This record gives sequence, structure tokens and C-alpha cells, in this order.
Amino acid sequence: MTKTYRIAVIGGDGTGPEVVAEGCKVLNAAAAKFGFKLEMTDFDFGGERYLRTGEVLPDTAVDELRGFDSIYLGAIGHPGVKPGILEKGILLRLRFELDQYINLRPVRLFPGVETPLKNKGPEQIDYAVIRENSGDIYTGMGGVSMQGTPHEVAMQTMVYNRFQVERCLRFAFEYARKFGKKARGKGDANTLGLVGKTNVLTYVFGLWERVFHEIGERDYPDVQREYYHVDATCMWMVKSPEWFDVLVTSNMFGDIITDLGAETQGGMGIAAGGNINPEGVSMFEPIGGSAPKYTGMNIINPLAAICAGAMMLETLGETAAADAIESAVRDVTATKIKSLSAGKMGYGTKEVGDLVAERV
Amino acid sequence: MTKTYRIAVIGGDGTGPEVVAEGCKVLNAAAAKFGFKLEMTDFDFGGERYLRTGEVLPDTAVDELRGFDSIYLGAIGHPGVKPGILEKGILLRLRFELDQYINLRPVRLFPGVETPLKNKGPEQIDYAVIRENSGDIYTGMGGVSMQGTPHEVAMQTMVYNRFQVERCLRFAFEYARKFGKKARGKGDANTLGLVGKTNVLTYVFGLWERVFHEIGERDYPDVQREYYHVDATCMWMVKSPEWFDVLVTSNMFGDIITDLGAETQGGMGIAAGGNINPEGVSMFEPIGGSAPKYTGMNIINPLAAICAGAMMLETLGETAAADAIESAVRDVTATKIKSLSAGKMGYGTKEVGDLVAERV
Ligand SMILES: CC(C)[C@H](C(=O)O)[C@@H](O)C(=O)O
Ligand SMILES: CC(C)[C@H](C(=O)O)[C@@H](O)C(=O)O
Repeated sequence: MTKTYRIAVIGGDGTGPEVVAEGCKVLNAAAAKFGFKLEMTDFDFGGERYLRTGEVLPDTAVDELRGFDSIYLGAIGHPGVKPGILEKGILLRLRFELDQYINLRPVRLFPGVETPLKNKGPEQIDYAVIRENSGDIYTGMGGVSMQGTPHEVAMQTMVYNRFQVERCLRFAFEYARKFGKKARGKGDANTLGLVGKTNVLTYVFGLWERVFHEIGERDYPDVQREYYHVDATCMWMVKSPEWFDVLVTSNMFGDIITDLGAETQGGMGIAAGGNINPEGVSMFEPIGGSAPKYTGMNIINPLAAICAGAMMLETLGETAAADAIESAVRDVTATKIKSLSAGKMGYGTKEVGDLVAERV
Repeated sequence: MTKTYRIAVIGGDGTGPEVVAEGCKVLNAAAAKFGFKLEMTDFDFGGERYLRTGEVLPDTAVDELRGFDSIYLGAIGHPGVKPGILEKGILLRLRFELDQYINLRPVRLFPGVETPLKNKGPEQIDYAVIRENSGDIYTGMGGVSMQGTPHEVAMQTMVYNRFQVERCLRFAFEYARKFGKKARGKGDANTLGLVGKTNVLTYVFGLWERVFHEIGERDYPDVQREYYHVDATCMWMVKSPEWFDVLVTSNMFGDIITDLGAETQGGMGIAAGGNINPEGVSMFEPIGGSAPKYTGMNIINPLAAICAGAMMLETLGETAAADAIESAVRDVTATKIKSLSAGKMGYGTKEVGDLVAERV
């Protein structure tokens, strides 16, 4: 019997549905080749639906999504909706309620892709960031007093408990062991770097640092441990990205450094992210926005969505199919596409999807 | 009668005293030329003193420093002292107790200086970041419960009140008006960009955003207002730094983006920062660390310290002298120095100080 994966597809806003359509095309090509099936179910969550119904996410949605093997997301963000509503109501809500506590963001420069950094190529820009995705200052804890008066005070709290920190670090150590530079034959150690701010955020990063060394020493002695301050990390990501192997960090710092990393690997047109619950339902997305002004023009770049699809297959255990998609994308960036920017690829959105699909 | 400024000099750790010595050399040359006097008083705060006496900062120090016109700082950080102790006990304590609520960080690429960014020169990398310096998650608010147990919880709180936000934004608007692109004849508007995370940190950046538009519209209608998310800001700082004019942000985000900006302008060897209390005693520092391994070798680059000195003179009102130092530094980077890195300048620390001093 053929293995079948049930995928919830949320095209979302703007160009989201277009890029996800190309992703599905490529995923189906990979499924056909590698002998599994994908059963796709569309969901219309996003700005349009919110403006029509007043509802960001129906209450039954989260439970319904729990029934799928994975979620494939396009982009959330609508010019007619106040910033924050859809991001919090859809993206962050799904991350939290489905407990997708890992945000996995590979930072890899593909051949032929232009990086804004001097003298850096695919050999130098080749690491991964594991961003904690369930805690930090993202939980909404905080409030405002005397709003709108001269005495207003606003607070947001960064919170972590041992459980959250440990499960994230364990995922990161395992990942470093499996995909670090040594494991990939690209160095003589697998190294996990903790990114924090121990010199100022002593409570929270004190906890991170203690757990890091405690479990690292005991359970992952084969993985080399490093610590970097977040401000210095940003400098090195630009100056010496080759120093990094696998990085792990908190939610807020991860948000910042993963976008910086994405820019160094060519930007929104290529960077993908996975919101992963290793024991539950994960969600994969291109990291770019909904780019509403390009909607329906067949000019947006679908490669990031396609890469997100590959990451989804990898997480589902279809490693050979995932690798085939990644190789196909590498071939397309190396030999076909002129630029990753919308309208400058030298091909339309659908044609890029075709190029990848036919190489899988 | 000659105007005399009383300067407290804290050389600090490692190479701090060496770079500050060159800074003082240049400052004195400028004073001689522009007809004012600098009365320098040395303070030995830093790691050595702490290890000797067990005291980070004597209790009388802050009051004593209040009696000066300005503070000139080398670097804090000693390999024999646990990270956090000196930074919190000296640097952050002085920032807070002297209420230096502005951290001013120009991001300017000088001619001849190498940036890690492709296709960007002094025309493209030419903006300033104003980092709020008194609040945010830097205040130490927070704590840990059940430390060391599986149930440990750690928290840090980001706090801002209207007063802090408004005084910082007013400084930033005034700065944009005075030093923005239009004011400098480099564009047709002075633009202030607020950097935040309104889509997640709704309480804190809600406050920032409201005050930004409220006072901007009423009191600074001539300054154009923009808003950017912090994650996107990092991408643009690498991809399109020419989009920026003056940026203003919170303490934690400012810490991160200013270091990223510093790297794009050539790194630690050139970037300077001012901790400013516009109504009180300010403190100026090169942003690099104490680089202990280079101590006493006459190979560290003093230009960042020299630029910090220029910023000090500017803040004291000695604009012509400050401009003369900056021009001298530009000439030295354009025509003399090979690299900003320690040991690779083609000159020793003292010789670089001489080169700048003789051009002032
Ligand atoms: C849209 C926003 C809430 C989100 C985040 O901050 O996590 C985005 O920036 C991301 O990185 O996925
Ligand atoms: C040393 C540290 C406490 C400090 C900070 O975080 O403010 C430094 O990074 C800076 O930017 O001046």
C-alpha cells in the first residue's frame, strides 16, 4: 500500500496561494517519483476571510489541523488588516496551540544565488539556526497602565521555564549531531553555538546557559559547545558566517538573526522555515511576506515555498524526496534563474515551478 | 579666558588605556588648535582594580563623576572576571545612574575603509542609530523561581514609560532635523525611522508608536516618519543601507542593530558610541572590547576611540574641533591605513594617533 500524507494547505494572502501552488506541484512530482502520496486539503485562512467573516481563525480550526500530518503555509498579511491581527491570530496562534516549539531556519547560500556579502560563497554561508518558538517575549504576557496619559507604563515579559529550554536545546544538540559540519563531511566537529545575552539578561540566559552545559556535557559530549552574545553574532553573520555550524537561540533573538541570515543567503525569495513539533503537527512556510502588489502577476519567486516543501518532506521522513527537491532547486538557481527578485527571474512563477518539478 | 573642560578618563581593561591615550593625544591637538583646554583626570575602574579590591565601582565614584563635563571610556572586560560583573557594575551602572538615556551610534563608512557589503560605499552607508539607553529589558527587573530544579522559571521584563519614550523620541526628532539627510544636503527629507516589533510586542511598541506619531505630527512635522520591524531592519541594513537616515529604537533592539551597523562600517576598529544625557554628564566609548590579547603590543587600532573623542567634543559644543578630528580620521583611512585590524594597519597604535593628531 502507498504511504499517504495528509497535508493542510493554507495559501493565505497576496501571493501566498501562487507560491504554494508551485510548491504543491513540486511536492507532487516528488511524491510520484519516490512512491508516496500527498492528500492536500485547502484552508482559506487569511485576510480576505477575516474581512468577510470577522473571524481570524474559526475555533474548530486548530483541532481540525491536528488531524493532519503537516501544514503547508503560504503567507499571512493583508493591506486591509491592521498589522498584528493576522500574525497573532493565525501564525502565532498555530505555533503556540500546536506547540511547534522549534523554528528551524537553515542559512545556506545556493549556487548561483547572489549574496550581499563580499567574498562569501556557498562554502562560507552554510549553517542553521534553531529558534525556540514557544516562549520568550512572544507569549503576550505584559500590559499597559494609564494608557494614553503622561504616566503610561508598558511592559512585556520574557519568560522561559526549564522544560521549554531543555526540549529546545535537546532538539538542537540532536540536530547538530545529525546535520552539523562533521556529520556532513564539512569539518571535524559538530558545533552547537548558544546565542544569548548572558551579560545583561542574567536570569533568562543564566537558565539557558546552565541547561546548555549540563545536558551538553552529559548527553552530547560529541557536540562541541560555544556561546555567543546576540550583538556579536550579528556582526559575525556578516563578517565571518563560515564560523557557524548550528546555532540555537531564544524566540526574539531568533526572529532577528534568522532574518539577517536569510538576507545573507539571498533573501525572501529563497529562505524557508519550519515550525516544528517533533511529536505533533508541524508547519512549513517561505519566510517572505504576502507581497500583495505582485498578486496574480505570475512574477513572484516560488523557490522559498518550494524549499519549505522540501523541509516538510524531510520532517515527515521522506529524506530522499526532500534531497531531490533541494538538488533540483540548486540546479535551477545555478543554471537558470537570473535573480531571485519578483519580475527579474527571467521566468514566471509557474515556469520556475515547472523547472524544479521536471528536475525532481 | 580659555574655556576648560574637565574630562574623566577611564582607560579600563586590556587595550582600553592604549586607545584612550591616542584619543587624548588627538583631543589635545584639537584643543590647542581651536583654543580650549581639556583637563583630564584618570580613573582606574576596571577588572584589575576589581580583582585587587573586590570592588567594581567605589560608592563615591558616581558622585565624583557627576562633577566632570564628560567621561571618556576605553573598554571594560577582563578575562579573569566572570562576564556580566564589570559590564553591569561599571558600564550599565554609569549609564543608568548618570541617566545617559541616549546611545548615539553613527553608522558611516569612511573612505578607504572596507565594508563586508557588496557594492556599498560611503554614499550608501551613512546613517545614525539612536538607541534608547535607560530602559527596556536592561533594567534588571525579573527573577528566577526554583532555580536549578526541573521546574525553574526565569523572567526578565521589558519596561518603558511614557517619559522615557518621549524624551528619547524628542532627542531623535531633533537629531534628525539637525543631522538628517536633508540637513546635510544629501537628500530632500530628514527622515526618522522607528524600529520596533509592533506586530508582537503590542504593549511596549504600541506606546512607542503612539508617542512617535503624536509628537512627530505636532512638533516635528518637517521630519518624515517611517516605521520598520526590527527583523526587516536587519535585512535592509545589509541589503539597502542607503534607505536609512536616522533610526530610533529601544535599548535591546538598539544593542543588536548598532553592532550590525558597526560591522557594515568596518567593525570594532572604527565604530564609536556616545552615552548621552543631554542635561547631564555623558560618556563616550569605542564600541569594541578590551581585546586583552593585544595589550601593550602597540598594534590595536585607536581610531574608534579617536572618533568617540570627536563625538565628545561635538556634544560639548566644540563642533569645529570635532569636525576637524573627523576629517583627519577620514584622511587617514583614505590615504594611510591598510586595514582596520589589529596588527594589519601598516602602522602602530601610537603612529596612527600621530597621523590623526598632525592632521587636526
Ligand atoms: C510575522 C511575525 C509575527 C513573525 C515572528 O515574529 O515570528 C515573523 O517575523 C517570523 O519570523 O516568522
Ligand atoms: C557590554 C554590554 C552590557 C553592552 C550592552 O549590551 O549595552 C554592549 O554590548 C554595548 O552595546 O555597549
